[in-house]
Amino acid sequence: MEPQLSEVSLPARLAEPDEDISAEELALAARNHGMPLEALRHDRTPAGLHYLLVHYDIPYLDPETWRLAVTGQVGSPFELSLAELRELPARTVRVTMECAGNGRAQLRPRPVSQPWLVEAVGTADWTGVPLREVLERAGADPDAAEVVCTGADHGVERGVEQDYQRGLPLGEALRDEVLLAYAMNGEPLPPQHGFPLRLVVPGWYGMAHVKWLREIEVVGTPFTGFQNAVAYRTRQSPEDPGEPVTRIAPRALLVPPGFPDFQSRHRIVRPGPVELTGRAWSGRAPLARVEVSTDDGACWRDAEVEPAGAHPWAWRRWRATWRAEPGRYVLSVRATDADGVQPVTQPWNRGGFANNAVHRVPVTCLPARNG
Amino acid sequence: MEPQLSEVSLPARLAEPDEDISAEELALAARNHGMPLEALRHDRTPAGLHYLLVHYDIPYLDPETWRLAVTGQVGSPFELSLAELRELPARTVRVTMECAGNGRAQLRPRPVSQPWLVEAVGTADWTGVPLREVLERAGADPDAAEVVCTGADHGVERGVEQDYQRGLPLGEALRDEVLLAYAMNGEPLPPQHGFPLRLVVPGWYGMAHVKWLREIEVVGTPFTGFQNAVAYRTRQSPEDPGEPVTRIAPRALLVPPGFPDFQSRHRIVRPGPVELTGRAWSGRAPLARVEVSTDDGACWRDAEVEPAGAHPWAWRRWRATWRAEPGRYVLSVRATDADGVQPVTQPWNRGGFANNAVHRVPVTCLPARNG
Repeated sequence: MEPQLSEVSLPARLAEPDEDISAEELALAARNHGMPLEALRHDRTPAGLHYLLVHYDIPYLDPETWRLAVTGQVGSPFELSLAELRELPARTVRVTMECAGNGRAQLRPRPVSQPWLVEAVGTADWTGVPLREVLERAGADPDAAEVVCTGADHGVERGVEQDYQRGLPLGEALRDEVLLAYAMNGEPLPPQHGFPLRLVVPGWYGMAHVKWLREIEVVGTPFTGFQNAVAYRTRQSPEDPGEPVTRIAPRALLVPPGFPDFQSRHRIVRPGPVELTGRAWSGRAPLARVEVSTDDGACWRDAEVEPAGAHPWAWRRWRATWRAEPGRYVLSVRATDADGVQPVTQPWNRGGFANNAVHRVPVTCLPARNG
Repeated sequence: MEPQLSEVSLPARLAEPDEDISAEELALAARNHGMPLEALRHDRTPAGLHYLLVHYDIPYLDPETWRLAVTGQVGSPFELSLAELRELPARTVRVTMECAGNGRAQLRPRPVSQPWLVEAVGTADWTGVPLREVLERAGADPDAAEVVCTGADHGVERGVEQDYQRGLPLGEALRDEVLLAYAMNGEPLPPQHGFPLRLVVPGWYGMAHVKWLREIEVVGTPFTGFQNAVAYRTRQSPEDPGEPVTRIAPRALLVPPGFPDFQSRHRIVRPGPVELTGRAWSGRAPLARVEVSTDDGACWRDAEVEPAGAHPWAWRRWRATWRAEPGRYVLSVRATDADGVQPVTQPWNRGGFANNAVHRVPVTCLPARNG
């Protein structure tokens, strides 16, 4: 029998209750990587430490021949070269980006997909042309519904062959800080982050920030393509139409203190004052509070949080001091925004999206060396 | 009872026959990442796509106060600042680096450690001062046995608390192309690749290229520290003293053709000519041959291999054309060096080191779109 797409591209599934990480999930984890948590020390994440999720393959695009097509409900469709884009008014925005599936591998039952723990985050300075600038020049229909952004990355997902494509509501697309970005931390985009051009939608989970952009189309009705209508929805069952995944829920992470065991990554400290520090963020509302716990969430106390400053879309540093004594601990940190606090027990959804359970870091304080 | 190091840092172990990837192995895979195989297209691997293995945490070193100490059997011990190192004669060497554990997760039984599949490789231009230059200036004892290189990264491994440390035989340390490198692809080292200084030992597996260097000590007897005497030896049993892991065995990898399914990474092509390409390398002897197979190794034919050129320590591109027809295939590629050819069945060792089994890529050729 001739081969069919359906035999190699299967429906979504949940792991069996006793099923550890499969070879397929490991293959995804070997390609897509998190940010080692000690890199929370950097205000902006250096190249190569920012989290990365590539749905299909990294496409290789020639910047000389590459064009961005602007189409759909516009005055007249046109194309822009990279040189033309670079001549338009530019701005730089510092943005904390997080994968919508961050935390998925900790869910029970576990949705089988990229098996993120907590590290799928990073912060960069993105430079480019506001999308609004290009939409205005195009004479985009102000009554249009969405802007559909298409990348050059091609693959198949649950039987649907596609270029990666997402619709963004027009109201979001017209926000000042939504960018067609050609630089990351002052350098041309690395291939894996969307060279030569990607969308950046501050405050939204990573799936909205379409990489390797080749077309933006203004459309009159909400996009019903795979990545909006099938993937990236919080559902309780396959039949549930679910809710779209949009803005980043509040989260705080901790730089694991002390030093690690190689294999288990378990942390070891010695008695005395230990500085606890990390970052907290929310894409939906300003941060109100960050708290730490050294007894696995029984008691919480406020951490000191740096002011929001000039970067409202970026994470904020927090600090607290812990006086460690020999024993076994679980350190935790939780953020609160205007809409609420991070949960201890993660509400479940079938895709494993928008998790923000409290970060827990087991730590052992050994007796003093000379003790 | 007061906590002990031994309760959080356990002996090496092998996975049970039916044991999938554990949470601990996944946590390592989320931090340390391979090179997505489509990046084999690049002669040198862009920042962030080169494989990365960090034993403990990435240390953050202040380049202003950082010093390299040169000690042991030398005329007189001294220290070098980064500025002083940059004033010494420099050279740039293109080096293919591969993790000694590449392929470990495919072994049965599986050694429980960083669960690499095949992607733990990358090629970069490393710039720095030949180690020999510094050893000669130090008046290193020509009858010394080894140079012990110590990094600033600190952790515990199988109960042994340590800074990462490796001994390199003096004869190797004096090779022209062994570098104290401060730049990668023309930029200062990224934090995760050893900023401000790392050792580069062309031809050797990654464990020899000590990152975040803080001391080089000339010693009269072979180093018996953890990373030489306990880890990085090929053993058949815990009691076996084993052989040290040194030079990179020959290997060829294939850019997976066509496009992938998101979840399984299974490849799909359509009928017609498909260019097969990738890279091949060996750290121990010049490459003699690269062959491809489209029938899971039943038949092999020669690929075209680019000349060695100016970069004897770097991978070489190979090419072949395949005329795909609808069906199910396993594509393979294998390299041969002066010492032999890659094995189909991987000889096993307890640490999972120095694997180089033939790369296998399952591919489905669908009927033509209009067929």
